[in-house]
Amino acid sequence: MDFAAALKRHVARVEQGLDRYLPAATARPARLHESMRYSLLGGGKRLRPVLTLAAAELLGVTDDSALPAACAIECIHTYSLIHDDLPCMDNDDLRRGRPTAHRQFDEATALLAGDALLTEAFFILREPSAAQPSPAQSLVRKRAPAAGSRRLIGGQMEDLLAEKKNNATAAELEFIHLNKTAAMIEVSLVFGGLCARTTTSNIESLRVVGRHLGFAFQIIDDILDVTADTATLGKTAGKDAQADKTTFVKLHGLEASRRIAQEHSEAACEALHNVAGDKTFLHALIEAMAVRPQ
Amino acid sequence: MDFAAALKRHVARVEQGLDRYLPAATARPARLHESMRYSLLGGGKRLRPVLTLAAAELLGVTDDSALPAACAIECIHTYSLIHDDLPCMDNDDLRRGRPTAHRQFDEATALLAGDALLTEAFFILREPSAAQPSPAQSLVRKRAPAAGSRRLIGGQMEDLLAEKKNNATAAELEFIHLNKTAAMIEVSLVFGGLCARTTTSNIESLRVVGRHLGFAFQIIDDILDVTADTATLGKTAGKDAQADKTTFVKLHGLEASRRIAQEHSEAACEALHNVAGDKTFLHALIEAMAVRPQ
Repeated sequence: MDFAAALKRHVARVEQGLDRYLPAATARPARLHESMRYSLLGGGKRLRPVLTLAAAELLGVTDDSALPAACAIECIHTYSLIHDDLPCMDNDDLRRGRPTAHRQFDEATALLAGDALLTEAFFILREPSAAQPSPAQSLVRKRAPAAGSRRLIGGQMEDLLAEKKNNATAAELEFIHLNKTAAMIEVSLVFGGLCARTTTSNIESLRVVGRHLGFAFQIIDDILDVTADTATLGKTAGKDAQADKTTFVKLHGLEASRRIAQEHSEAACEALHNVAGDKTFLHALIEAMAVRPQ
Repeated sequence: MDFAAALKRHVARVEQGLDRYLPAATARPARLHESMRYSLLGGGKRLRPVLTLAAAELLGVTDDSALPAACAIECIHTYSLIHDDLPCMDNDDLRRGRPTAHRQFDEATALLAGDALLTEAFFILREPSAAQPSPAQSLVRKRAPAAGSRRLIGGQMEDLLAEKKNNATAAELEFIHLNKTAAMIEVSLVFGGLCARTTTSNIESLRVVGRHLGFAFQIIDDILDVTADTATLGKTAGKDAQADKTTFVKLHGLEASRRIAQEHSEAACEALHNVAGDKTFLHALIEAMAVRPQ
C-alpha cells in the first residue's frame, strides 16, 4: 500500500465534501460564509475525518456514506479551534500557517463563524447518506456528547481553569486531554464504524484505538510546542511555556513524555488488531502521527 | 379558558424540562455547568418553547413528547443571547434583569457556555420522545437550518454589518428580522406540529403564523427599546438609539411601527384559523404579545 497516496486520496475526499456541504461563499451573509470557508478550507491535517473514512473503509464501506459524518467532525473541530483562538481564550494570531479567523476578519465574525460551523455539523449529520443504522442509534446517542459540555467543551473549560492556576495535577491534565482531544478522536473512529454498521465489539475496539491515539496526539502536541518552531507548526510555538501552562512536558519532562506517547501509539495499534479487515492504512497513519517532526 | 394559568402551566413544564435535560450544576466542569444553568434557568418569557408546546397540544399531543423539542429551542435561543451580549458583539451588561453571563462569570466561560448550550440542543433533540415521525423527517431537515448561517446566525451577522453603517434599508432590515427573530419563532411552532405528526397543510399554516408573529415580536422589541425603561425590560433600554442603529422605529416612526406590528399580529391570528383544533390559548398568546408594555 502506498500510504502517502492513500492519505492524499482520503484528504481530497474530505476537502471536496466540505466544499459541497458548506453554503457557498456568496450565500448571504457573504462575510459569514467567507469566514466559515476561510477557516474550514484553509488547510489542516484532516486527521479526524480521515480516521472516520479509514475506519469505515476498513469495515467494508466502499461508497461515500461515511463522508457526511467525517465532514461534520471536521466542522466541529474547526469551530472549536476558531473559538479557542479568540482573544478571551488563547488569543492566538496564527493557525494552520495563516492569520486566525478573528485576525483575518474580526472577533464578532469569528465568533459567529464558529457558531455556524457547529450548527452546520449537526445539519450535515442529517444528510441522508449519514443514515445511522437503527441498531447503532443508541450508540450514536451515547457518543454524541463527545462534543458537549462534559467532554470537548468541558475539556476546554478545565484547560482554562488549569492555565489560571498554573499547577494542574497529573489527574487534572489527564481529564483535559481525555476530553479536549481524545473524545473527538474516539468519535471520529467510532462514526466510521457506525457508518459501516459493524458489530458492537468492533466499535468498542475502535473507541479504544481512538482513546490511545488521542492521548498520543495530545502529548506529541505538548512536545512540539517546546521543540518545533512556529513555521513548522503553522501556529505560535512556545505558547504553553510562555503561559507557564501545565503540560505533559512540564509534568513529566521531554524524555518521559516521548516514551508515554510511544506507549499510547503502541496500545492504539494493539487495539486495532482486534478489528476485522485490512488495517494497513490505519496502522501506517498511527505510526506517521507518532513520528511527526519533534 | 384562564390564559394566565395555562401560560403558567406551560412555562412550568419548560422550566422542569430544562432542569431535567441539562447536566447538573455539580457535573464536571462545575463552572461551565453553573454558567449554562445561570443563563438558561434565570427567567425569561419562554415564548418559543411555549409556542412549541401549545402548537403540539392544539394538534392533539397530550403527553410530554413535544417537551424535548421545546427545550432544545430554548437552549438555542439562550446560547444566541449569551453570544450576542459578549463584548465583541452588543457588549451588554444586563439580561433578564441580571448581569449577563460574561459579567457574572467571564468572557471565556460565557463563550463556552453558549457553545455548550447549542451543542446540548442537538443532544436534547435526540431524546427518544422527540422522535420525529418519518413522514415529517424531510420537513425537519428543511427546517433545521433556521438556527444556521443563513438564518439565525446570518441575521445576527447582517445586524452587526447594518449597525456599522447605520443606514440599513427597509429590505435589509426585513432580512435581519426575518432571519434573526422570525426563523426561530417559525420553527418553534413547526416543531410542535411535527411532534403532533400533523398534516403538511397544518405545518405550513403554523409556519405562516410564526413568521408574522416573529415580525410583530421584533417590531415591538424595537418599539420597547425606545418607550420602556431598563427595569421593565430587564435589559438595557435605549441601546438601539444610542448606537444609531437602524430599527423599525427609526425607519418608519413610532406610530407606523405600532400599526405594522398590529397588522402582523392580525395576520398571525388569521393564519391560525386554518389550523385544526382549539386555538384559544395560541390566540390569546398572540394578543398578549401585541400588548406588551409599550
